[in-house]
Amino acid sequence: MSHLHNDIFLRALLRQPTERTPIWIMRQAGRYLPEYNQTRARAGDFLSLCKSPDLATEVTMQPLARFPLDAAILFSDILTIPDAMGLGLHFVAGEGPKFERPLREEWEIRDLQAPDPASSLSYVTDAVRQIRHALDGSVPLIGFSGSPFTLACYMIEGQGGTDFALTKKMLYQRPDLLHHILTVNARAVTDYLNAQTEAGAQAVMIFDTWGGALSHTAYHDFSLAYMQQVVRGLVREREGRRIPVVLFTKGGGLWLESMAATGCDALGLDWTCDLGSARRRVGDQVALQGNLDPAVMLTDPATIETEVSRTLASFGHGHGHVFNLGHGITPQATPENVAALVEAVHRLSPAWHAD
Amino acid sequence: MSHLHNDIFLRALLRQPTERTPIWIMRQAGRYLPEYNQTRARAGDFLSLCKSPDLATEVTMQPLARFPLDAAILFSDILTIPDAMGLGLHFVAGEGPKFERPLREEWEIRDLQAPDPASSLSYVTDAVRQIRHALDGSVPLIGFSGSPFTLACYMIEGQGGTDFALTKKMLYQRPDLLHHILTVNARAVTDYLNAQTEAGAQAVMIFDTWGGALSHTAYHDFSLAYMQQVVRGLVREREGRRIPVVLFTKGGGLWLESMAATGCDALGLDWTCDLGSARRRVGDQVALQGNLDPAVMLTDPATIETEVSRTLASFGHGHGHVFNLGHGITPQATPENVAALVEAVHRLSPAWHAD
Repeated sequence: MSHLHNDIFLRALLRQPTERTPIWIMRQAGRYLPEYNQTRARAGDFLSLCKSPDLATEVTMQPLARFPLDAAILFSDILTIPDAMGLGLHFVAGEGPKFERPLREEWEIRDLQAPDPASSLSYVTDAVRQIRHALDGSVPLIGFSGSPFTLACYMIEGQGGTDFALTKKMLYQRPDLLHHILTVNARAVTDYLNAQTEAGAQAVMIFDTWGGALSHTAYHDFSLAYMQQVVRGLVREREGRRIPVVLFTKGGGLWLESMAATGCDALGLDWTCDLGSARRRVGDQVALQGNLDPAVMLTDPATIETEVSRTLASFGHGHGHVFNLGHGITPQATPENVAALVEAVHRLSPAWHAD
Repeated sequence: MSHLHNDIFLRALLRQPTERTPIWIMRQAGRYLPEYNQTRARAGDFLSLCKSPDLATEVTMQPLARFPLDAAILFSDILTIPDAMGLGLHFVAGEGPKFERPLREEWEIRDLQAPDPASSLSYVTDAVRQIRHALDGSVPLIGFSGSPFTLACYMIEGQGGTDFALTKKMLYQRPDLLHHILTVNARAVTDYLNAQTEAGAQAVMIFDTWGGALSHTAYHDFSLAYMQQVVRGLVREREGRRIPVVLFTKGGGLWLESMAATGCDALGLDWTCDLGSARRRVGDQVALQGNLDPAVMLTDPATIETEVSRTLASFGHGHGHVFNLGHGITPQATPENVAALVEAVHRLSPAWHAD
């Protein structure tokens, strides 16, 4: 078993006792950091930054140099898989990710293949290895992927959006085609995450950014069922240590019980959920990760401390909570506020872990 | 008591027995109808359409001429109140509503006054009277307003959006200011809805479009508390008949129990909620309205019938369900599909109401 100086993140995900609540921040290597913006400018564009293991390592390490965070997360994008499938990922300034060749024809869907991570995604596993080396056992490294359904949305729409008209038309009119895409995606996500843990990722998180746009029934059939396939296919132990799996469906607060029943170790919660109610609903099945409103990071240290205190109290006494925001940190947040957040969690959380 | 040829909508909202499930459609007078687009073009712009009682009556009646719907809804906009407060509502093509003078300074907030509906909003009550006359007792007329919090979002941001950074900064840093705005808005919404029912609206609905963007705690303190104030201040009987009140928080599925406890008669549900689970959670307290995914309206009559059948089954046997979409119908829907929807609800729902 490789040595880890700080493993409280992994222990909290497995609901083991910890002396305080661990914290990391979704999108912690991001545009709120001046040094990130400098590296990104040097890379030229976002995709070049993702595809260079050197630069991905550099930006992954940046927030850890500033703040005593309890985990690192691989710097990458959720759309690497459809890019490796040949859909032509590119980023348009101010408009977010787009695909040059979205899935429009039935034959394109039938031809879809799960990419071999060892070839077309080796830049990701190279980055994982290089980050593990740079971390040198300080904190664990989180690997991640988009969920099969979230990837399918981008692959069908060709871009992000709010209504997912094409995806939903397919879901209601040609569910066979969507199930085919999702079967391929579930295989691809499983292989991709296993390749990340083989290369050194010590926990994995599945981001289901768009599952919350589905109806109750459609969520279970088209998003959760395929995340469950992924969870079942993951290698759960490496280097003599359990590899925790975190599922996060943004807007999925109504479905926590079914998410917990997939066999994952933890659920990511957005800020609309009450941590205490969520804990009562999922019982001892899973740990919980979250869920401060990212808008709190636009305020000031005193307000942040109040809201950290409220969040810790809503989870209550005991173990199994990983502090995080309820969604990614926004570019308008300041490093000073992030420092205040991390400090407040370190200072206020031990009281909730005392016997 | 004024005569109503078809009162099953009102009876369903009060959980009284009906022979079938009533149906109306959020935004039923909208851009999916060619005749609506013609009237709107004649009006020049959206706001002129809202402010002309003649034209508002014309478009309110259009969907009823095509489809056997069980209710009419006043054609208006949720932002008439802040417009009457002097914030300068205008519509920018392709960008949605904007305010010329959003609330930026503390003195502007302190100066805010609830408008007297009898003066600055008389175009709305005139439209209500004219629509009632045009309906001639065929089906009931629904009045509506935005929720105090949803209005505040627009008043503070100056426009719609997805992150509500300014509103949330105020919520976390200057809750006193936001509470002041919401107190004024709650007074304004109460007066406005009472003026609508005095003029002839036979049910009212409060649209909390943005409450779902709040954290659990913030939703209760800043959105629901003020909707409750409104519910308590409403005149609940006119013309010898109970006036049902429907609350709809988009994305509010986690909070149905607290919404039902406000004293409203019914909850609007978006499509992420399961009607059966919602019914078990709220018991006999309230009726439920909803909740077909609006994306289903982009498909075809056979698919629509399947999904109508699924929706009716998810509510199950018995009374207290008003069929609707889970959000407004989109311009991409077709009148043919709406006809199929209404026909399917009429044909399939009686079986769920049989003894």
